Amino acid sequence: MALIVQKFGGTSVGTVERIKQVAEKVKKFREAGDDLVVVLSAMSGETNRLIDLAKQISEQPVPRELDVIVSTGEQVTIALLAMALNDLGVPAVSYTGNQVRILTDSAHNKARILQIDDQKIREDLKAGRVVVVAGFQGVDENGSITTLGRGGSDTTGVALAAALKADECQIYTDVDGVYTTDPRVVSQAQRLDKITFEEMLEMASLGSKVLQIRAVEFAGKYNVPLRVLHSFQEGPGTLITIDEEESMEQPIISGIAFNRDEAKLTIRGVPDTPGVAFKILGPISAANIEVDMIVQNVSHDNTTDFTFTVHRNDYEKAQKVLQNTASEIGAREVIGDTKIAKVSIVGVGMRSHAGVASRMFEALALESINIQMISTSEIKVSVVIEEKYLELAVRALHTAFELDAPSRQGE
Amino acid sequence: MALIVQKFGGTSVGTVERIKQVAEKVKKFREAGDDLVVVLSAMSGETNRLIDLAKQISEQPVPRELDVIVSTGEQVTIALLAMALNDLGVPAVSYTGNQVRILTDSAHNKARILQIDDQKIREDLKAGRVVVVAGFQGVDENGSITTLGRGGSDTTGVALAAALKADECQIYTDVDGVYTTDPRVVSQAQRLDKITFEEMLEMASLGSKVLQIRAVEFAGKYNVPLRVLHSFQEGPGTLITIDEEESMEQPIISGIAFNRDEAKLTIRGVPDTPGVAFKILGPISAANIEVDMIVQNVSHDNTTDFTFTVHRNDYEKAQKVLQNTASEIGAREVIGDTKIAKVSIVGVGMRSHAGVASRMFEALALESINIQMISTSEIKVSVVIEEKYLELAVRALHTAFELDAPSRQGE
Repeated sequence: MALIVQKFGGTSVGTVERIKQVAEKVKKFREAGDDLVVVLSAMSGETNRLIDLAKQISEQPVPRELDVIVSTGEQVTIALLAMALNDLGVPAVSYTGNQVRILTDSAHNKARILQIDDQKIREDLKAGRVVVVAGFQGVDENGSITTLGRGGSDTTGVALAAALKADECQIYTDVDGVYTTDPRVVSQAQRLDKITFEEMLEMASLGSKVLQIRAVEFAGKYNVPLRVLHSFQEGPGTLITIDEEESMEQPIISGIAFNRDEAKLTIRGVPDTPGVAFKILGPISAANIEVDMIVQNVSHDNTTDFTFTVHRNDYEKAQKVLQNTASEIGAREVIGDTKIAKVSIVGVGMRSHAGVASRMFEALALESINIQMISTSEIKVSVVIEEKYLELAVRALHTAFELDAPSRQGE
Repeated sequence: MALIVQKFGGTSVGTVERIKQVAEKVKKFREAGDDLVVVLSAMSGETNRLIDLAKQISEQPVPRELDVIVSTGEQVTIALLAMALNDLGVPAVSYTGNQVRILTDSAHNKARILQIDDQKIREDLKAGRVVVVAGFQGVDENGSITTLGRGGSDTTGVALAAALKADECQIYTDVDGVYTTDPRVVSQAQRLDKITFEEMLEMASLGSKVLQIRAVEFAGKYNVPLRVLHSFQEGPGTLITIDEEESMEQPIISGIAFNRDEAKLTIRGVPDTPGVAFKILGPISAANIEVDMIVQNVSHDNTTDFTFTVHRNDYEKAQKVLQNTASEIGAREVIGDTKIAKVSIVGVGMRSHAGVASRMFEALALESINIQMISTSEIKVSVVIEEKYLELAVRALHTAFELDAPSRQGE
């Protein structure tokens, strides 16, 4: 008999019919003998409806009061599921974040969980009840309702699993697991049975938006086994867990991630003096622009070129800031490019394997794809290429690192 | 500087525009120097929408979970008003029933308030904030959300006023006060400046549905001055308060109440033995049918006639029960009539004045209206008449007891 925390997102509880389906699913687990804590989001669209209502009253709603309104979304779904479960003969009880007592800081609209009181939940589980908890919300020490920010329901699920020392935290979504890469780009993409927290973090931050990054970090920190599954299809999903030193049998690379959200900016002919990187990036950061990749070439003739990427939405703003900096520090010119894509190979296996990067570069070279920037971390190698080569690059790398589904290769 | 509790109902907060109007109104009171606690209902229609949603999940929703859902209605309006007030430069904070801590019993969907913690509210008032409280809801000692049942927001307002020893509890509605009778029936009906709790109770229970009976009882018990006002029109409204021994100047009769919701049943030729009333009404009560007026005539030939009224919706059910009783106790026959109306004169002044009843009967006799049943209490005389004479009877009594508006008599 296991203790499982299950989290269902907005589309999984988007209609009365779906809530009833979720109840049937929960019932099956319960009948198999598991203890269950179910975390729910608001019905899809409801959070936006509530925010719109608030915006009609106030252009800049008081954050504390916005949380009071927005938190009603989950409050409705938890009670609906608890009702549906009781109707199926499964004793169930609902709790808001405040009722569990999910204690957070007071950063309204983006609060962080500090502590979870597990007493009530343990009593209910002991009494044979399914506990249905509102995701995305908590309460601060003044008793004010807080919300964790968008996607916070995943975090609630993981935090509850950590507090209860659950055997597994299952995140139900509209995909059946984590794939080696996007199946829409590579038809041979395979669902992974297993992936490490670190790999998942790299995949998630690179655009494989299956899970909230915060939830994965949290799960890694407290070592909560996390499983991604499809809400309404059967299947084992993908288990996200620690690296259990089985790397001998693991593939070197777990997946290929990519995104087209970034733009590249280069400031050329920068006088190469100490502190130049700060002089360039300080104003960018002060303008609240996040920087992803940063590359500085070795200098020649006492000047250097400095390149970095930002989100495309910030491109024009960043360009203006950089032009100012260029005049101030006497750089030659600022150039930029929005038609780029970033492709990354991710895998804990590469820690113990040399030559992973060169194998990547070789595969791209064979397709005559020019690499514009390179950045590496312990479990990831990323390159920036021209956007039009994105699909070609992903397919080439997928094959080069032997990720193609064997059963499909013969198709 | 007074402490005022103001309650606004569903139509007063039915739209974003109206909520903004309520905020403007509250601001004016605040600027006049009053401390304010504002109690709100859900936006009109919202409670029904939430109940419908629950009914789609379950024909008989678990009462505890239904309260979790339904309570979100007020949770939204309090935050919207708090936002609107802050936008107008009036510091304000919202509290759910749970956050105030309005402790109730655990009778979900129809809970009763046991205790109110006034600490937080007093701190906020001291700090110059308007406190906006969700009506209709509370929390039981297990921390479960409860609701007080329909119209419970009035009760929340009165209970808060009692706990805070407020100077006045103002109930804002869609009428500008309590009238001597329904102005749609008697054009000379006058708004009363003042009425006692007892009179208001009699008026309310007789169909003048301005206030919830429970709220009036509560206000009377704790001596909370209660004022009924129009939400969006200026005016002093009607003050409901204790009888301050000013009866010398008070009119004998404060108002004429009436309803057409009842039906009359008579069981004739009942053998007149001790306990016969219980034999007749016991089965009615066991069938969960509420009885209003009861009249038993003096017996002749050792048999008696026994008449009572029930709500029209219960008429057929009551008739069947009574037929059974009639066979059992050997009564002659059961007859009934649904085309009746009940008219009452209400006033604490009649306590010290003889002849009020006879003046009533005289006024009806002058219009040739036959009286079918009579029932009296200390501050009320009620008669049942044929329904078609209702308007005529009310107008005749309104004039006979000198309630007609003097300014309008010459019109």
